[in-house]
Amino acid sequence: MYSLGLDFGSTAVRALIIDLDRGIQTAAAGTDYPCGTRGVCLREEDPCLARQEPDAYIAAMTESILAAEALARAADPGFSPELVAGIGADATATTLIPVSRDMTPLSRKKEFAGNLDAASWMWKDHTSFAESREITELARQLHPEYLTRCGGTYSSEWFWSKVLHALRAAPRVFEAAYAWIELCDFIPAVLAGIGDYDLVRCSSGAAGHKAMYSPDWGGLPDEDFLRRLDPKLAALRRRLYQKTFASDAIAGRLSPAWAEKFGMKPGTPVAAGLIDAHSGAAGSGAGPGKLVCIIGTSACDITAAKFNGPPPEIKGISGIAADSVLPGYYGIEGGHAAVGDSFFWQATTICGIDVRDYGKLEAEAAKIVPSPHSVIALDWLNGNRNPYADESLRGVMVGMTLRTTPAELYRAWLEATAFGIRQVTDILRDAGFGVDEIICCGGIPEKSPLLMQICADVLGKKLLLPAGHEICALGAALAGAVVGGAFPSVEEAQKNFCRYREQTYTPSPARREIYDLLYEKYVSLGQAFAAGPLAGIMH
Amino acid sequence: MYSLGLDFGSTAVRALIIDLDRGIQTAAAGTDYPCGTRGVCLREEDPCLARQEPDAYIAAMTESILAAEALARAADPGFSPELVAGIGADATATTLIPVSRDMTPLSRKKEFAGNLDAASWMWKDHTSFAESREITELARQLHPEYLTRCGGTYSSEWFWSKVLHALRAAPRVFEAAYAWIELCDFIPAVLAGIGDYDLVRCSSGAAGHKAMYSPDWGGLPDEDFLRRLDPKLAALRRRLYQKTFASDAIAGRLSPAWAEKFGMKPGTPVAAGLIDAHSGAAGSGAGPGKLVCIIGTSACDITAAKFNGPPPEIKGISGIAADSVLPGYYGIEGGHAAVGDSFFWQATTICGIDVRDYGKLEAEAAKIVPSPHSVIALDWLNGNRNPYADESLRGVMVGMTLRTTPAELYRAWLEATAFGIRQVTDILRDAGFGVDEIICCGGIPEKSPLLMQICADVLGKKLLLPAGHEICALGAALAGAVVGGAFPSVEEAQKNFCRYREQTYTPSPARREIYDLLYEKYVSLGQAFAAGPLAGIMH
Repeated sequence: MYSLGLDFGSTAVRALIIDLDRGIQTAAAGTDYPCGTRGVCLREEDPCLARQEPDAYIAAMTESILAAEALARAADPGFSPELVAGIGADATATTLIPVSRDMTPLSRKKEFAGNLDAASWMWKDHTSFAESREITELARQLHPEYLTRCGGTYSSEWFWSKVLHALRAAPRVFEAAYAWIELCDFIPAVLAGIGDYDLVRCSSGAAGHKAMYSPDWGGLPDEDFLRRLDPKLAALRRRLYQKTFASDAIAGRLSPAWAEKFGMKPGTPVAAGLIDAHSGAAGSGAGPGKLVCIIGTSACDITAAKFNGPPPEIKGISGIAADSVLPGYYGIEGGHAAVGDSFFWQATTICGIDVRDYGKLEAEAAKIVPSPHSVIALDWLNGNRNPYADESLRGVMVGMTLRTTPAELYRAWLEATAFGIRQVTDILRDAGFGVDEIICCGGIPEKSPLLMQICADVLGKKLLLPAGHEICALGAALAGAVVGGAFPSVEEAQKNFCRYREQTYTPSPARREIYDLLYEKYVSLGQAFAAGPLAGIMH
Repeated sequence: MYSLGLDFGSTAVRALIIDLDRGIQTAAAGTDYPCGTRGVCLREEDPCLARQEPDAYIAAMTESILAAEALARAADPGFSPELVAGIGADATATTLIPVSRDMTPLSRKKEFAGNLDAASWMWKDHTSFAESREITELARQLHPEYLTRCGGTYSSEWFWSKVLHALRAAPRVFEAAYAWIELCDFIPAVLAGIGDYDLVRCSSGAAGHKAMYSPDWGGLPDEDFLRRLDPKLAALRRRLYQKTFASDAIAGRLSPAWAEKFGMKPGTPVAAGLIDAHSGAAGSGAGPGKLVCIIGTSACDITAAKFNGPPPEIKGISGIAADSVLPGYYGIEGGHAAVGDSFFWQATTICGIDVRDYGKLEAEAAKIVPSPHSVIALDWLNGNRNPYADESLRGVMVGMTLRTTPAELYRAWLEATAFGIRQVTDILRDAGFGVDEIICCGGIPEKSPLLMQICADVLGKKLLLPAGHEICALGAALAGAVVGGAFPSVEEAQKNFCRYREQTYTPSPARREIYDLLYEKYVSLGQAFAAGPLAGIMH
C-alpha cells in the first residue's frame, strides 16, 4: 500500500508517494502554479499585496500527481495508483479563498474575472496591516485570552485581519462570498467533490491562533467581539465552522471524477489539512522534546506538547494551535521573518556578489573565528515574529570597524539566525518545554553547512537533518497513511518514516563559550530596540 | 613681498607662495615623503604602528620649495625668492621625533639605522593605547584639571602616551633621546639651523591639550604626576620646554645654508609652528563665531574664542589649546575619527563598487528623500572623538529592511557625518559659543556636493567653501606674513586672503524638519551605546 502527500508551497505544489510497507519514499514531482510571476500575482502600486489563482492550485496539483504516479511506476514495478490507501494535504496558511456556498471560488465567476481581490489571498499578503492592529487593540481590551496563543499580537497575515480588510477594501467581493476558506481546507474538499461549504471539515491547525479559534472560549471569537469590528463579521461567523479536525480525521473521500483522473480507487480517504510548516515538522519527527527548525527565506521553530486542559500562555511565542503538528498535541511555533532573505540581501543587494560566487563568501565567512568583538546583528529586516511579534521592527548591525569585511557582515546574519532560534528554545525551556533534540530542515540547512555549524555552536546541541527531501509533503503523506488505516497514529507513522542523515553537526565547546557572551549581547540589544530605551528609534 | 607656507601632511609636504601686496596665491607645489609605503612606514605584525623618516620630511620640503619657486617665477615675473618676507610651517600632530641635544634625529645615528622606534612617530600611531588609558586614569585621580581641555580622555595619539610607550617598548631609543620634538617645532628649528634643543621655540597649539601644557597649572604636567607614571618621564620633563609660542612669534631666522639653497635672504624670519588642521582653520578664516570643518578621511571642526582667564571645560569637546588657530585666542577643536574613510569602506570594501563608479553611487544617494524611517548610522568605525572621546567604540547601523539599497547605506554615513558636526555645534552653542558661519574645506567638500547639501540641511545653515586650494599651507603662509612684518596680526592677514567660492549650500526647510527628527534619534542612539544601557555591548 502507498500514501500520497500534497504540499502546497508559496510558488509550487509537490506530490510525494510513499511506500507504506517498506517505509520509503517512492517518487515525488513538483509543478509551479501557472499564475502571476513565479506563481504569485502582484499589484505594482501595492507592495503588500500577494494573491494567487485558485484554479492554478488545481491545475498544478493535477499535473504533479500524474507526474509522481508516472515516476512511481518507473521506480517501483509494484506501484499502482489503486494501491494508494490515503491522501494528505498541507498548504501555506493563512491563505484564504473567497467561495460561494457551493464551494465555487469567486474568481471563477464572470463578474470577478481578473479581480485579484476575488482570488486567493496569500499568507504573505500584508495589505491588512491596519486591521491587525485594530483587532489586537480590541482583543487587549475585551478578550485578552484571544491573544494568549499568538504572542500577544494578532498578525496581518491571519484570518480576521484579511477578511476585515476585504470587507473594507473589496466590499463587492466580501458581499458575494459565503465564506473564506483556508487553502489547506479547500484542497481536501475539492478532492472529495464537496459542493456545500457547510459540509467542509476545517483544519484545527489552520483555525488555531490564526483564526483565534479555541474550544476553550467557544470556538471562533464571539459575535459581540466581531460586531464591534464590523457587524458583517459577526454575520460571517454564523456561516463558518463550529468544529475543527486534526489530520488523523477524514475530511472526505476521493470523488469518482478525481479517482478516474488519477487511476485511484473512488472513496480513498482524504485527511483533514495541515499548515505546510507544521506538516514539515511532523515529517521531520517533531514531538515532545523535539524541535524542528524549518529554515528557508524565513524560518519556523516547531515542537509539540501535551497539556492537561488549556495550554498556558507562553510569552514571546507566536503560535500555539491544537493538533497542528500531531493530533492530540498542541503545536508550538516560533518564527523568524527574514533568514535566507537576510543572507541573500547582504550578499547580493548590498555586497553585489554574484550568486555563483556565494560559495566563496561562505568559505570566507567560515574562516572567521568568533570573538567578543564580533559584529552583532538583529535580523529584523522583515520585522520580528519572536519574541516581540512586531512587524514594524527593522534590522540593526553593531560593532563594525574600518577593517570589517563583507564576510563578517554576512556571518553576522547567520549568527543572528542561530541566536534567534536559541532565544526561542530559551523561552520554551523557561515555560517548561525543554528541547532535547533539534532537527533542521528546509532549503538552507542543505546549502549552508556553515549555518548548521553556527547553530550547533550557539545552541550547544547536536543538530540532525532529515534523510529525505520532500519533508512537508511527507508530513501530509503520513496523515494520508493514518486515514488510510496503515498506522494507528501519526506518531506511529513517524517511527517508520522519519530518518536522519549520518552527517550531524556537533557544538565546539570553545566557540560555544564565545557565543554565550555574544548571545547575551544579542538579547540585550533586542530588548533595548523592541521595548526598551531605544524602541522610539525604530517606531 | 611674498610669504612661504609649508604644510606637512600625512603623506606629503606642500609649499605655497603668496603675494602679500596683491592678496593672491602665486604658486604651490607638493612632494610625497620618500619613505615607507606612500610616505608611511608600517610594521606588518602591528597594525597600530605608523612611522616616518625625519630626513624624508627635509628632502620632500627642499624639493617642494624649489618647485614652488620655479612655478612662481613662471607665473609672476616680479617674483624672486629674495622677496620672501617670512616663512610659516604647519604639520600633523602629535608627530614626534626623538632627537639628541644637538637636534640630530636619532634615526640618523648608526646604532639606530633602520630602527622604526627611532624614526618619527606619526599622529596616527596607536601603539600607545594602553598608556593613554593609564594616563587618563591617573589624571582623573590626581589632576582632573589636566583633562578639562581634552574632553575628559587623554588620547593614544598624544605626547605623553607616545613617550611613555617608547620608554617601555623601546628603552634604548628612549635613553638615547634628549627630547622628543613635534614635527611642527622641528621644521622651523631645521630652517633656522638651531643646533641646541634648549633654544627651540615650541608651538603653543601643539603643546596645548596634546602635551597637557597650560600656564594655568604651571606648564607641562607636574613632576610628581609624571614620576608616578615613570621616574624617567619626570626627568624628561626637566629637559623639555617651559614656555610656548604662538604663530605670530619668530621661532628663528633662516640659516645661511638654507638661504643659499632657496635663494632667499639669510635671516628671513620663520614663524613658530602650527598644527596642520588648525593652520587650515586659520587659512579658511576661522575666528569667533566662525566654525571651520576640515573634512577628509577624518574631520575636525575648529573655531576660536577669547576668554577672560582660563577657558571653561567644555564637556564633549576633545581639544582646547591656546593660540592654536589665532594668537591670543583659544582654538577649540571637535573631531570625527572616520569620515571619508567610512564612505570609502561602505562603497568599496562592502559594496565592492569600483572607485570609477563612485559618481553613480553618489547620484543614487542624492535621489533618496530622507524620511523618519531612514537608516541611521553611528560612524564610529574608527572610534569616537566627540563627544565621547572613546577609541573603543564601533560602528552601528539601524533601520534596514530587505528593500534597503547600497545607496541608502552610503547616504546614512554621509548623514552621520552631518549629525556629528551638528552635535559639536550644539555642544559649542550650549557652552556659549554660537556658530554664525560654517566654512567647509578639505578633500571631501569639493568631491561630494551631496555631503555639503546634507550638512547644510542638517545644520540649518548656509555653508561656505574657501576659494583656494592649499588652505592648510595658506594658514602657515599667513603666519609667515605676520612674522615677516606685512600684517600686524593673523586676523588682519585673513582679511586679505580668506575668500569664498560663489557656490554656497543653503538648507531646505522641508528636509531640515525631517533631519531634526533623525538627529534626535542619532543623539539618543549614541548616548545609549557610548554611556547608556548598551555601553556593555561594544566594550
